[in-house]
Amino acid sequence: MHEKHIKHQWRARLHEVIFEADTRSGKRFDVVLIIFILLSVAVVMLDSVQAFLAYALWFRIIEWFLTIAFTVEYILRLLAVRKPLAYARSFFGIIDLLAILPTYISLFLPGTHYLLIIRSLRVLRVFRVLKLVKYLKEANMLLLALRASRRKITVFLFSVLSLVLVLGSIMYIIEGEESGFTSIPRSVYWAIVTLTTVGYGDIAPSTAIGQSLAAFIMILGYCIIAVPTGIVSVELTRTMGERASTQVCPKCGAKGHDYDAVYCKYCSTKL
Amino acid sequence: MHEKHIKHQWRARLHEVIFEADTRSGKRFDVVLIIFILLSVAVVMLDSVQAFLAYALWFRIIEWFLTIAFTVEYILRLLAVRKPLAYARSFFGIIDLLAILPTYISLFLPGTHYLLIIRSLRVLRVFRVLKLVKYLKEANMLLLALRASRRKITVFLFSVLSLVLVLGSIMYIIEGEESGFTSIPRSVYWAIVTLTTVGYGDIAPSTAIGQSLAAFIMILGYCIIAVPTGIVSVELTRTMGERASTQVCPKCGAKGHDYDAVYCKYCSTKL
Amino acid sequence: MHEKHIKHQWRARLHEVIFEADTRSGKRFDVVLIIFILLSVAVVMLDSVQAFLAYALWFRIIEWFLTIAFTVEYILRLLAVRKPLAYARSFFGIIDLLAILPTYISLFLPGTHYLLIIRSLRVLRVFRVLKLVKYLKEANMLLLALRASRRKITVFLFSVLSLVLVLGSIMYIIEGEESGFTSIPRSVYWAIVTLTTVGYGDIAPSTAIGQSLAAFIMILGYCIIAVPTGIVSVELTRTMGERASTQVCPKCGAKGHDYDAVYCKYCSTKL
Amino acid sequence: MHEKHIKHQWRARLHEVIFEADTRSGKRFDVVLIIFILLSVAVVMLDSVQAFLAYALWFRIIEWFLTIAFTVEYILRLLAVRKPLAYARSFFGIIDLLAILPTYISLFLPGTHYLLIIRSLRVLRVFRVLKLVKYLKEANMLLLALRASRRKITVFLFSVLSLVLVLGSIMYIIEGEESGFTSIPRSVYWAIVTLTTVGYGDIAPSTAIGQSLAAFIMILGYCIIAVPTGIVSVELTRTMGERASTQVCPKCGAKGHDYDAVYCKYCSTKL
Repeated sequence: MHEKHIKHQWRARLHEVIFEADTRSGKRFDVVLIIFILLSVAVVMLDSVQAFLAYALWFRIIEWFLTIAFTVEYILRLLAVRKPLAYARSFFGIIDLLAILPTYISLFLPGTHYLLIIRSLRVLRVFRVLKLVKYLKEANMLLLALRASRRKITVFLFSVLSLVLVLGSIMYIIEGEESGFTSIPRSVYWAIVTLTTVGYGDIAPSTAIGQSLAAFIMILGYCIIAVPTGIVSVELTRTMGERASTQVCPKCGAKGHDYDAVYCKYCSTKL
Repeated sequence: MHEKHIKHQWRARLHEVIFEADTRSGKRFDVVLIIFILLSVAVVMLDSVQAFLAYALWFRIIEWFLTIAFTVEYILRLLAVRKPLAYARSFFGIIDLLAILPTYISLFLPGTHYLLIIRSLRVLRVFRVLKLVKYLKEANMLLLALRASRRKITVFLFSVLSLVLVLGSIMYIIEGEESGFTSIPRSVYWAIVTLTTVGYGDIAPSTAIGQSLAAFIMILGYCIIAVPTGIVSVELTRTMGERASTQVCPKCGAKGHDYDAVYCKYCSTKL
Repeated sequence: MHEKHIKHQWRARLHEVIFEADTRSGKRFDVVLIIFILLSVAVVMLDSVQAFLAYALWFRIIEWFLTIAFTVEYILRLLAVRKPLAYARSFFGIIDLLAILPTYISLFLPGTHYLLIIRSLRVLRVFRVLKLVKYLKEANMLLLALRASRRKITVFLFSVLSLVLVLGSIMYIIEGEESGFTSIPRSVYWAIVTLTTVGYGDIAPSTAIGQSLAAFIMILGYCIIAVPTGIVSVELTRTMGERASTQVCPKCGAKGHDYDAVYCKYCSTKL
Repeated sequence: MHEKHIKHQWRARLHEVIFEADTRSGKRFDVVLIIFILLSVAVVMLDSVQAFLAYALWFRIIEWFLTIAFTVEYILRLLAVRKPLAYARSFFGIIDLLAILPTYISLFLPGTHYLLIIRSLRVLRVFRVLKLVKYLKEANMLLLALRASRRKITVFLFSVLSLVLVLGSIMYIIEGEESGFTSIPRSVYWAIVTLTTVGYGDIAPSTAIGQSLAAFIMILGYCIIAVPTGIVSVELTRTMGERASTQVCPKCGAKGHDYDAVYCKYCSTKL
């Protein structure tokens, strides 16, 4: 009994330090963690640059040190929560695991340690250290709006993909191999590059008909970019603007009262 | 009489399987259909890739098999509906016909079988298999908003086209043949590439005046992209936020009353 | 007296044919005019293409025929209105004059006849032939929204220009002559190309610091494109959404009535 | 006493001329100032162009003349205000200092005088000379909207940066050194170029998998550009459309009543 109590106390203390950021030690833990994450991302990035080849050994040492630190942190996180499985399955739980695996895998498969860059996703934890509640509320609002527009954007994407397939194939027939449209998949790739207004220029039409169709695709892309923007705008307005309650005045029947209204604003009856 | 009854029953059963997706066999039919369509699109795409030249015969066999299957399906669709002509003229009726024609035409005109990629448009049927009603409602909303902004976008496009013609011609006079502005149509093509912020870079101004005008066109394009976006946003807000109730005045038959209206605003009759 | 009456009748008839599109002859005149304009634009464009050099004489003949026709039309327009000067100073009056001048000027200054492309602006008259009132109303709405956001967009443009000057100069100092940043004006041109997400690729940073700054400029451009879009959206919503009149019910004092409301929707009092 | 009075008068007069634009001499001062600023920006820009090398001495003379003029102006500004430190720390105070420093520094460190381009930021003062109040109000509105969306845009930027890091690294592993993806930082740079739809084309994927991932990134970028646009639109709507009246309840002091409110919605007192 006593042992269990101590264990509970330890877990609560651990949880406070690792998962929360409103105590002093909790905040300090988070700041150290974020510095470690940023250091780790920097090491992975610089490790791939030719000019820093001389420091490769140092990078390897730091990487192993950080991986072990993150592994310990991951185990502590599992110990700190009551339901370790729930944490392991959550978004950040999976990211935390993916952030340590590549180093171990790279022992057997060289090259995979570049996947460590996935650690950069852990930096999203930074919002906890900033005035967390407000930022999380804003992030939530954005997610809500995106989720609400999920279906509309799916419909939009399917239509755009069909369009791009058809336009790319027509372009393949028109332009032929000389201008770089060597196959339909490549033409479809070009159509996406053009419709999204990216425009690399590695493939570009050279015939008059091809350029006319390209001009048409560009103007089309210029106009239909309005669709996702419109969708998100409307959903954001909804998510942020939901101020009016659905209450009706019992006396005069007026609607459109604010959520915080106590009396009807037209006839002063108590709501 | 009896024969006709049987025929009716057959047609109803056929209609259920082919056109609807809420029964088990109807759903299964749709899933098989979509797999066939995706397979067909994949075959047309891969057929154009140099690296898969060895499989050309296999692609041809699959293509003919699918074309015959789609032809049978098209005939069944015509039989399943009461007014075959109405179906044949509908959007999907035309797409269904266009999806089988190229293979037959390619017997006489080689190369046209690439047009089979139009089959990808048939994939839009996929929304029927997903929770169809909701997705179709969303698609409808988008279409409604686009249709409502039809006129505004026409005005916008005409203005942009005029602008692009004038700017392209001025650029032709300024830059001349050296920088790739070899003719007015080509300069207009460049103006579209620039205004829509695609920017291939295959044609780019080289004189100081040309670059200044180009910079002006870019900033213009950067600003007027706001116009279609604004139009679609506003129309989407309208379509989704429709405030007018569906109530009809019992006396004068007027529609379009606000949800909070108690009396008809045209004849003062109580709603 | 009699003569003046005849002249008035003539002018009214002329005005009806040339300036209006709701009578049969008025519409026919407009259709012929638009065909002439499109023909004229096509001739100017094709005239600049190397491949059509053989037809140069034909193009010259058609151009002179059309210029004379447009000159006659311009004179008739001046005669048809009561205040010729007011017409000559209006937007379309100036365009109409500019549409005939270059041919005459090209007698003295060769090459200027390419400016005839300005005739394409006359095509905007096409809206008169389509269901004119509605399209003009939509065009008006767009213009109103743009005019209302005039000041905000001016502020935005000034800020963007200052930004681009500073960023371009910093880039000039960082990158130097090797990567194509040969002068500050050229660097500013590059900054505009990047900020507006056009991205030709004729000038691109090659140093690590330069690429970092470029990445920063891109993300900045990606974000501030939101500003003009937001401005136009808001103004369009205002212009299109102004449905509520400012009338107040004389009995209950309720506001927010539609423009077409005759009775108060809350208490049925006549407005 | 008398001396102090004279000093006060002098300061008030100086303040009127230098800081305000509604008197005649104040306006004249501002116009001259803006001409000097524009001249200065032009000189710095032209000084960097190879073709104007012959005028280098003239540019140097003008630059020194303007720098001395701006130095005098800066000192006068410090004298004209009661709290010189407050001015020196304000946005324009810092810009004014930065606008003169580089010339003096360039005596010791050659090349730094290009930083004088920072003077272009001083041109933002131009709004004072135009119908100042209105333009400043509009600028304020834009700033307010941007400040209100600060947090949402921070969240958005952090997510985009994480995304770009992960996508760039995956691209580095897929494409390898041949196509120009020589290191992770360079791949991340490419990912930003692609996601923001800039698309230089200096680095472009060449493998099929790489192009597929690139197509995915483009469509992603095409869709998530909707997010900042939506955010700014909504905030601008809020800032511009503020519906709450400025009335304060005479009894409970509550604010934020709608324009159509008759009674305080918190305590039912008549407004």
